[in-house]
Amino acid sequence: MSTGFDLDAWSHARLHEVEQALDAWVTAEVPQGLDHGAPAELVDAMRYAVLDGGKRLRPLLVLAAHEAVCDPTGHPAGHPVDAAGASQAALRAACAVELIHAYSLVHDDMPCMDNDVLRRGKPTVHVQFGQASALLAGDALQALAFELLTPTDRCVPAATQARLCGLLARAAGSAGMAGGQAIDLASVGLPLSERQLREMHELKTGALLQGSVMMGAHCGAPDARVLTALAAYGGAIGLAFQVVDDILDVTADSGTLGKTAGKDAQANKPTYVSVLGLPASQAYAQQLLAQALGALERSGLPQTDALRALADMVVNRVS
Amino acid sequence: MSTGFDLDAWSHARLHEVEQALDAWVTAEVPQGLDHGAPAELVDAMRYAVLDGGKRLRPLLVLAAHEAVCDPTGHPAGHPVDAAGASQAALRAACAVELIHAYSLVHDDMPCMDNDVLRRGKPTVHVQFGQASALLAGDALQALAFELLTPTDRCVPAATQARLCGLLARAAGSAGMAGGQAIDLASVGLPLSERQLREMHELKTGALLQGSVMMGAHCGAPDARVLTALAAYGGAIGLAFQVVDDILDVTADSGTLGKTAGKDAQANKPTYVSVLGLPASQAYAQQLLAQALGALERSGLPQTDALRALADMVVNRVS
Repeated sequence: MSTGFDLDAWSHARLHEVEQALDAWVTAEVPQGLDHGAPAELVDAMRYAVLDGGKRLRPLLVLAAHEAVCDPTGHPAGHPVDAAGASQAALRAACAVELIHAYSLVHDDMPCMDNDVLRRGKPTVHVQFGQASALLAGDALQALAFELLTPTDRCVPAATQARLCGLLARAAGSAGMAGGQAIDLASVGLPLSERQLREMHELKTGALLQGSVMMGAHCGAPDARVLTALAAYGGAIGLAFQVVDDILDVTADSGTLGKTAGKDAQANKPTYVSVLGLPASQAYAQQLLAQALGALERSGLPQTDALRALADMVVNRVS
Repeated sequence: MSTGFDLDAWSHARLHEVEQALDAWVTAEVPQGLDHGAPAELVDAMRYAVLDGGKRLRPLLVLAAHEAVCDPTGHPAGHPVDAAGASQAALRAACAVELIHAYSLVHDDMPCMDNDVLRRGKPTVHVQFGQASALLAGDALQALAFELLTPTDRCVPAATQARLCGLLARAAGSAGMAGGQAIDLASVGLPLSERQLREMHELKTGALLQGSVMMGAHCGAPDARVLTALAAYGGAIGLAFQVVDDILDVTADSGTLGKTAGKDAQANKPTYVSVLGLPASQAYAQQLLAQALGALERSGLPQTDALRALADMVVNRVS
C-alpha cells in the first residue's frame, strides 16, 4: 500500500495473540463452571481443524475493524466503553469467527459435500479422524464459538456478548454461510446468472467476512455512519474474496493453494470465471477493491490502514 | 401425580405456543436486519426436522422452570425483572433448546453416525433430503438457536440474551452434548463401568436437559439456592431420561417408540441395561426420580407442580 503501512508486521503481532488464544480455548480442560472437560479424542479433531493453519483473514478483519473504531489510545471513539473489555471482546470475536470458519471447512470437505481430501496441505479432518468425528468436531466448534463470546467472568459487557452472538449466528446461519452453501449445493451443473452467483457468494463467503468486520466494530461503540460504511466495506471484500477464489481456482496450482486446484471447474460448479470469463472477473475484483476503499473513505474513521491493507491483500493475493 | 396437577392440560397450552413460534421462526422469510432470506430448499429440510414431531420435553422444561421461579402473577420472585421480557425470553429459550435437540438428531441419524432411517415414524432427514442437505440443515439449526436468543428489537434484556447463549453453547458443545456423542461413538463394543456410562450420558443427554432447566430459571432472577436445587433436579432427570431410554430400547417396540427399537443392543453399544441389568436399571430410574423431587423440595420454590410432573413423566413414560 502507498501509505507505507506494514501489514505483515501488523498481522504478525495480532496473529500471535490469536493463535495463543485459540490454543488455550480449544482444549479438553474443564472450562470454568462445568463439571466435565471435553473428551480428548473430540478435542484432538477440533484442534487439528483449527490450529496451525489458514491465513486467519477473518480474525484479522475483526481486530482491524475494532482498532479502526477506537482512537489511538485504544478507547472507542466518543463513548466511555471500557478499553480492556473491548479488547477482550475483540480477541474472543476474532477466535469465534475463526472457529465458525474452521467448522464450515470440516463439514464442507466431507464426502457428502465436496469430498475433498487435502486442506492447507494436510489430510482433511474426516480423512484423519473419520467421518463421524469430523461431523461432531464441526458441530462442537460451532458451539465453542458461542462459548467464547459469553465468558462468565464478566470480562466482556453483557450487551456486547449479546450483540456479538447475534451477529455471528446470523452470519453463520441459514440466511448466511449455511444458506449460501445450500444454494451452492443446489447449483451444481446449473447455468446461473451473475446476479444469482453473486447472491450465492454473498451468503456463502461474504456473510461471515462482513460479519467479522461488523463484530469487530461492535466491540467498540461506533455511530450509524461508521456502521453503514463498514458494512459496505465488508460486503465488497466479502464478494471480492470469492471472485478471487474463483480466479485462483483456475490460475494457481494445488501446491500454492494448499488445496486441490481446478476443483470447482471439475465439479461443474458455476464460478465467476465460468460466468464472466477470466479477464472480466479480474476487473471485477479490482472494482470491488475500489468500492471497499471508497467505503472506508466515507466512514470518516481516522485509522483505516489495516482495513485498507487487508482489502488489498484479499484482492491481490496469490493463494 | 398425587397433587392433582394436570400435566396434559398444562403442556397443551404451552406446546401450542411453542409450535406456533417454531413455525414462525424456522422460515425462509427475510429476517429483520438482513438482506437475504434463507434458501427455500434448506429451510424445507430444517422445518421437516423440527416441526410436527417429538414430545418437546426440553421446551416444557424451560417453561416449567421459568414458571417455577416466577410468582403467580408472572413476575420473577423477588426481583424487578420485566415479566413480558422474561416470558419472551422463556419462549425463545424453549424453541432454541428444541432446535439444538433437532439438529443433534439430524446429524446423529446420518450414515456416518447411527445410520438410522426412521425417526418419529418418518424417514430421517438425510433419507428425505440427502446427506449434504441434512448436514447443512443441522448446522443451520444450531446457528438459528442462537439467533432466536438474540432478538435485535430489545424484547429480551441483553444480560438475559448473553446468559442464555452461554448456557446453551456450553450444554451443546464439546463438554456437553457433542462431547457425549463423541464418547458414545468411541465406546461402541467397549466394556464401560457404570461410572463411565454415567459420565457419557451426563454429557450426551443430560447436559441439554439440565441446560433447559437452567435456561428457564435464568429467564427470571433466581437466587443461588434455587439455582443449586434446579441444577440438581436437571442433573437427575437428565440422567433418568437416558436410563429410561435404555430400558425402553429393550422393552418397547418400534411402533410405540416411533424409531427403531433394539438398535443399541444391535449396535453393541453399552447401555444401562447391559451394564446394570433390567431390574437394577428400573430401580435406578426411580431413585433418580426421588432425587429430582427431593431437589425441588430443597429449592423452597412454591410452584413446582409442572417440574414435578415432568420428572414423573420422564421416568414413567412408555415411549
